[in-house]
Amino acid sequence: MSELAGPGFITQRLGAFVAESHWDDIPAAVREEARRSLLNFIGCALGVARTPPIEMALRVLLPLSGPQPVTLLGRVEKLDPLGAAFINAIAGNLLDYDDTHLRTVIHPTAPVAPAVLALAEQRGLSGAAVLHAFILGAEVECRIGNAVSPGHYARGWHITASCGVFGAAAASARLLGLTDAQTSHALGIAASQSSGLVENLSSAAKNVGVGNAARNGLFAALLAEAGYTAAPAALEGPLGWARAMGDAPVVSEITDDLGTRWEVALNTYKPYPCGIVMHAVVDACLELRREHGLTAGAIAEITVWGDQLLLDRGDRVVTNERDARVSIHHCAAVALLFGAAGLKEFSEAAVHDPAIAALRTLTKVRLDAASPKGAATVAVRTTDGRTLETTTLNPRGSAQRPLTNQEIEDKVRDLARYGGFRGPIDRIIAMLWELETLPSIEPLARLLGSE
Amino acid sequence: MSELAGPGFITQRLGAFVAESHWDDIPAAVREEARRSLLNFIGCALGVARTPPIEMALRVLLPLSGPQPVTLLGRVEKLDPLGAAFINAIAGNLLDYDDTHLRTVIHPTAPVAPAVLALAEQRGLSGAAVLHAFILGAEVECRIGNAVSPGHYARGWHITASCGVFGAAAASARLLGLTDAQTSHALGIAASQSSGLVENLSSAAKNVGVGNAARNGLFAALLAEAGYTAAPAALEGPLGWARAMGDAPVVSEITDDLGTRWEVALNTYKPYPCGIVMHAVVDACLELRREHGLTAGAIAEITVWGDQLLLDRGDRVVTNERDARVSIHHCAAVALLFGAAGLKEFSEAAVHDPAIAALRTLTKVRLDAASPKGAATVAVRTTDGRTLETTTLNPRGSAQRPLTNQEIEDKVRDLARYGGFRGPIDRIIAMLWELETLPSIEPLARLLGSE
Repeated sequence: MSELAGPGFITQRLGAFVAESHWDDIPAAVREEARRSLLNFIGCALGVARTPPIEMALRVLLPLSGPQPVTLLGRVEKLDPLGAAFINAIAGNLLDYDDTHLRTVIHPTAPVAPAVLALAEQRGLSGAAVLHAFILGAEVECRIGNAVSPGHYARGWHITASCGVFGAAAASARLLGLTDAQTSHALGIAASQSSGLVENLSSAAKNVGVGNAARNGLFAALLAEAGYTAAPAALEGPLGWARAMGDAPVVSEITDDLGTRWEVALNTYKPYPCGIVMHAVVDACLELRREHGLTAGAIAEITVWGDQLLLDRGDRVVTNERDARVSIHHCAAVALLFGAAGLKEFSEAAVHDPAIAALRTLTKVRLDAASPKGAATVAVRTTDGRTLETTTLNPRGSAQRPLTNQEIEDKVRDLARYGGFRGPIDRIIAMLWELETLPSIEPLARLLGSE
Repeated sequence: MSELAGPGFITQRLGAFVAESHWDDIPAAVREEARRSLLNFIGCALGVARTPPIEMALRVLLPLSGPQPVTLLGRVEKLDPLGAAFINAIAGNLLDYDDTHLRTVIHPTAPVAPAVLALAEQRGLSGAAVLHAFILGAEVECRIGNAVSPGHYARGWHITASCGVFGAAAASARLLGLTDAQTSHALGIAASQSSGLVENLSSAAKNVGVGNAARNGLFAALLAEAGYTAAPAALEGPLGWARAMGDAPVVSEITDDLGTRWEVALNTYKPYPCGIVMHAVVDACLELRREHGLTAGAIAEITVWGDQLLLDRGDRVVTNERDARVSIHHCAAVALLFGAAGLKEFSEAAVHDPAIAALRTLTKVRLDAASPKGAATVAVRTTDGRTLETTTLNPRGSAQRPLTNQEIEDKVRDLARYGGFRGPIDRIIAMLWELETLPSIEPLARLLGSE
């Protein structure tokens, strides 16, 4: 390996890895995690398929779309593959309820799956091809993210968008059957399209970054197929991607143990549609309510202890749904009040519910510098003078307590219902679990293109 | 101004500037420079309209393009406005013969004009609207470039692409008649699409960056029109564009003297299709040949003195056209041999011409640390023992010696001929000079869409 490790090694090695991968090389656990990722993604997309951010973007793209369009999840309209990749990626990420690669905080599936689904539908490819391409794409995406984390996000790059484009490019290149060299070119072309800013996360411009990641990754692969090239060391060169976008990147992270250690196997899924660092708060409150049969009238004060990260992200005033999703106060309030923290509990109606607002104001937030990352302690002082306290170290959905397949299914059904999806969600779920056996992705696409 | 200079000031002020500009506020000299820029751009695009990089990208985009397509310069095919903006931007920049904003080394017109032309053709807008929007777009683009130069390019960002997207967004927003706030949103959405790497400049991935700048800027404006938003301080915020992409950005450069000092008036045009720092070498050699009636047989040795920048860029072995365009040896050889340094002198045939190769090997390059930026001294030792020497401080096309309108016209005719364009180039040139008076851009577009 060392003799090959000159300029261009990383970009070239990555291209070869994607182009030369055999299905038999993919461990069963990785395939299973990929199925879970895709299923979770589909649920998230169906949940928002007919919301304004999707409608607005569709209004722009529909009149520009050519013949032979492909499916938009949860909609009857269709779009050209680049446009469909853009819209479906936005849908997958919009609720911030999608998957998380914890080390990088990348949401891996939203930028990759839409490119794969669009291309596979257009070209009549199999379920196994889809699953394989998705795995390779998500793996490339997370490894490139590892190489530039944490400096990249801290500098202002929305890593799901900026690294997602590589995942979409790799997966699309694989589906197109590109050679080693063409796949490296696709990755290099993706590097010149990488973007997305943290500053814009509070606005619809966030969607544009995520949508472009899928769209531009697919575009990169199509251009490489048509003969476009990139610099040999587009990723790691002296004026290349990692240096431009990273602070102290470690590019060897991209290729170390490639094919033996699988980042995509570390993917996690949220049980609650709120900021991932809030999940321990939710779980602790659910436990207190369950253990002690708490009712709203019995609560005099709620105190939440957590580390600085939790406080930075979650100690805030709630004025809209977006705030609610990252508010410690709101998460504690709904979990204690309803014993639930699902889509309904973070809706616009919940934001303005006086009972929730009352509990939010009873919630105090305190620093516990010794609290581990991702953990939280909650104490409830009751109106009859008791103090009930519990600590959650590993919330549901974390690497230590992954959601079961049944829990992911339930989440997907809940999302489909929330989005008003009238397609056969049970059949879709069943097809996802058997994705490897589908000779063509077309029947699945047809079901997903229901309203 | 100081009371407004809080968070969001830059992005908001820029949006208001674009949306509220009046045609009467644009000085005559700025309008004239904009006409020259557009004419020069059209020539560059026509020169390469049927080359492989254009054909390959077209092969990808044509099948995806929807109804009501618009013109591709020098081609009979048409594409949806986003696709056309992409292709025409690539064409404008492909030869590296386009315009230069010297302070930032941005090529301002290639990313902006294609977005403007596509939108104006689609919506039947006037020549004055086109000229006004182009001026505002190019101004925004260069000012944002000033704010992050020189650290931005040095970090690896291809500034024509990364700042071009703002120019295209601003110009498109103006043409769409967006409000102040919508225009600011368009700029903020553009910030989440800014990309393009210096590492990729030697490959077709460069084209993707430049094409995307036009395409994504137009897309940003269309999304803003449809209701998409961006963060108030997308450009200057703590996790915004300038911090992510700049090293020590000075964001006040974006708005200082806005509307009174015009960066677009500082645009320059290349008389020779080679690296701009080579131009003094060419001029010095042309002068020596003219003054002394030099012939190839009379030349024993050529010595070129220049600063470190000239040597870094231009002291190289020539193996292909791309090398020839940035080779001191090749530039000196063709200028002395033919008394010309036009498209023919940098062709594939010229690279392999034995007479040129012979003169290249007779050329020595020497450092003159005292030589001003952009200058060169050339000495020719003749076979009869004389030494003929001259220094060029300000080459043709520099800010001190701008090309005349007639010279730009000649360049455009030469490019059209080189590209095999069979449309009525004289009528096109005449329409460009009278752009303000055209009630619709459509007749011009029709002429440009010839082969």
